[in-house]
Amino acid sequence: SLSRGMHTVTMIPGDGIGPEISTAVMKIFEAAKAPIQWEERNVTAIQGPGGKWMIPPDAKESMDLSKIGLKGPLKTPIAAGHPSMNLLLRKTFDLYANVRPCISIEGYKTPYTDVNLVTIRENTEGEYSGIEHVIVEGVVQSIKLITEDASKRIAEYAFEYARNNQRSSVTAVHKANIMRMSDGLFLRKCREVAEGYKDIKFTEMYLDTVCLNMVQDPSEFDVLVMPNLYGDILSDLCAGLIGGLGVTPSGNIGANGVAIFESVHGTAPDIAGLDMANPTALLLSAVMMLRHMGLHGYGKKIETACFDTIRDKKVLTKDLGGNSKCSEFTADICRRVQDMD
Amino acid sequence: SLSRGMHTVTMIPGDGIGPEISTAVMKIFEAAKAPIQWEERNVTAIQGPGGKWMIPPDAKESMDLSKIGLKGPLKTPIAAGHPSMNLLLRKTFDLYANVRPCISIEGYKTPYTDVNLVTIRENTEGEYSGIEHVIVEGVVQSIKLITEDASKRIAEYAFEYARNNQRSSVTAVHKANIMRMSDGLFLRKCREVAEGYKDIKFTEMYLDTVCLNMVQDPSEFDVLVMPNLYGDILSDLCAGLIGGLGVTPSGNIGANGVAIFESVHGTAPDIAGLDMANPTALLLSAVMMLRHMGLHGYGKKIETACFDTIRDKKVLTKDLGGNSKCSEFTADICRRVQDMD
Ligand SMILES: CC(C)[C@H](C(=O)O)[C@@H](O)C(=O)O
Ligand SMILES: CC(C)[C@H](C(=O)O)[C@@H](O)C(=O)O
Repeated sequence: SLSRGMHTVTMIPGDGIGPEISTAVMKIFEAAKAPIQWEERNVTAIQGPGGKWMIPPDAKESMDLSKIGLKGPLKTPIAAGHPSMNLLLRKTFDLYANVRPCISIEGYKTPYTDVNLVTIRENTEGEYSGIEHVIVEGVVQSIKLITEDASKRIAEYAFEYARNNQRSSVTAVHKANIMRMSDGLFLRKCREVAEGYKDIKFTEMYLDTVCLNMVQDPSEFDVLVMPNLYGDILSDLCAGLIGGLGVTPSGNIGANGVAIFESVHGTAPDIAGLDMANPTALLLSAVMMLRHMGLHGYGKKIETACFDTIRDKKVLTKDLGGNSKCSEFTADICRRVQDMD
Repeated sequence: SLSRGMHTVTMIPGDGIGPEISTAVMKIFEAAKAPIQWEERNVTAIQGPGGKWMIPPDAKESMDLSKIGLKGPLKTPIAAGHPSMNLLLRKTFDLYANVRPCISIEGYKTPYTDVNLVTIRENTEGEYSGIEHVIVEGVVQSIKLITEDASKRIAEYAFEYARNNQRSSVTAVHKANIMRMSDGLFLRKCREVAEGYKDIKFTEMYLDTVCLNMVQDPSEFDVLVMPNLYGDILSDLCAGLIGGLGVTPSGNIGANGVAIFESVHGTAPDIAGLDMANPTALLLSAVMMLRHMGLHGYGKKIETACFDTIRDKKVLTKDLGGNSKCSEFTADICRRVQDMD
């Protein structure tokens, strides 16, 4: 399905405002002449043999071939035992690294102006093992699972990321003072991997201390690597520092180039279909995707246009403090992208 | 040991800057004529039969009689298997509720001006169970233990606290979307307890969402109740919003009035003995203690004096942005307390 150097990407528009913001992204990509051919797929889970929830075969096949997905927000159907759609996708494609760059956006005011960090979250195990038991009536245990392999893999990813993105330090975030064996194992693997990256500074910090310091001075942080739940918390906290999930990109990375980039905000059913949604998070995720695919020039062009529109403040969606429609915001970015040629 | 309506309190000065800041607190209490008689005790753990670490008998006895402790920072000795001193104290006296009011301090600039919330952390179980196993080489599990009893107890504490402190809402913080059984049990107990407090608004929020919203607008929060680890994280995050651990009070509350109030900052060995430390966190913890003992007038007087000194900005320790000594800061508060008579 490739024509004239085109790359196929599986587009999962998602629910609620998903279709609008993915249309916006596709328009901007077209204006930028980005060599992407979209294959739209619905991933609403189906139940396979034995009641197992799985994503539909045609979505799975598309991803298996394209290797790269871009996805809008998904609602998780309310059915007994239905897993989170996000978790199901991470699991299906073994997307072991969740990567979120949090960089202050010029012109979009928050209490912080100098955030420039990346959270790298182990995406497959830890507190998300799904293993829980009732021991006796009224006593429940959940199991946090930490393995040497997954810890090593995510630590290696973090150091490679730092090196390839001109970043100077990696901080391992943990509570090994409390979970001595599990977080201890995670930390030990980070230390071992750090040995091979003498060009990158390695530090270790307690999660509670990171949270405290983060809200006092985020500028002291660079790349942060951590187990699953800590990443869930810290990546949202950091998104908050730069303006929330509406402007924060995210990537879920697997082995052999497989990856799904996604906006991590909700489906916003209250404004769905009203041409009011803000496509920034999905667009910046698509920019991460372009860089992941080695298409840096297109990435830079689109990112610059998006940031210029925001800095300019004339055409902003409501959540960004303006009163323009999604389509107007999109058109403004398209115009800037075209003006760059 | 009570004379003329005096109350005995076990004072655990602690390590590093501990002795200086506890001396400061005792001076201010004396200036305020607070009816407290201090019984100083060292809690450095000893090893009992079978190698079990325990706090020294004379410290235990003092606490058993006085029921109330005030403690400075403690360093945990580096010995194989030595537990955190803080955890050992919580365990020894079954201090099941960790309470931290985070209220913006007028005149002490941070990016936030309108923080006025209280974190209530379950202090005995959860991820702090201490139960961990190696399953096979390279695979470790840590057990998060949630019980009906502890969840109910902390939920009841939170609602009672809200009612007795003129607060209007309680938010249960959880990840029951992931840890469906354990956090699910915690949440269920919160809901059940909420039924009995129709005067208090009850809401539920995911931990990641709380972190995100917290750094965007902390003023939307009131009382927050949560399992152990989430409390560890969120209480430090919230302390960061109002200026850090140097100005944040903390109380560990048990049954039958037993409680230890503490500053949660470190021992600051680099400035220990140099008359540079900031006693505010320990002093505000002592104010919490006075209120816990029903001595509201003394609490109000000392708190007002402390906040006046900070707002006035003339006599501040270095960490607060001034260049005064601990003893000068203390003397300024003493003078104000005496002027109130
Ligand atoms: C939707 C939810 C299961 C998910 C998580 O907890 O990981 C979300 O918070 C995220 O960060 O992607
Ligand atoms: C010292 C440490 C064991 C402790 C914890 O993790 O609970 C501390 O961070 C706290 O919040 O009191």
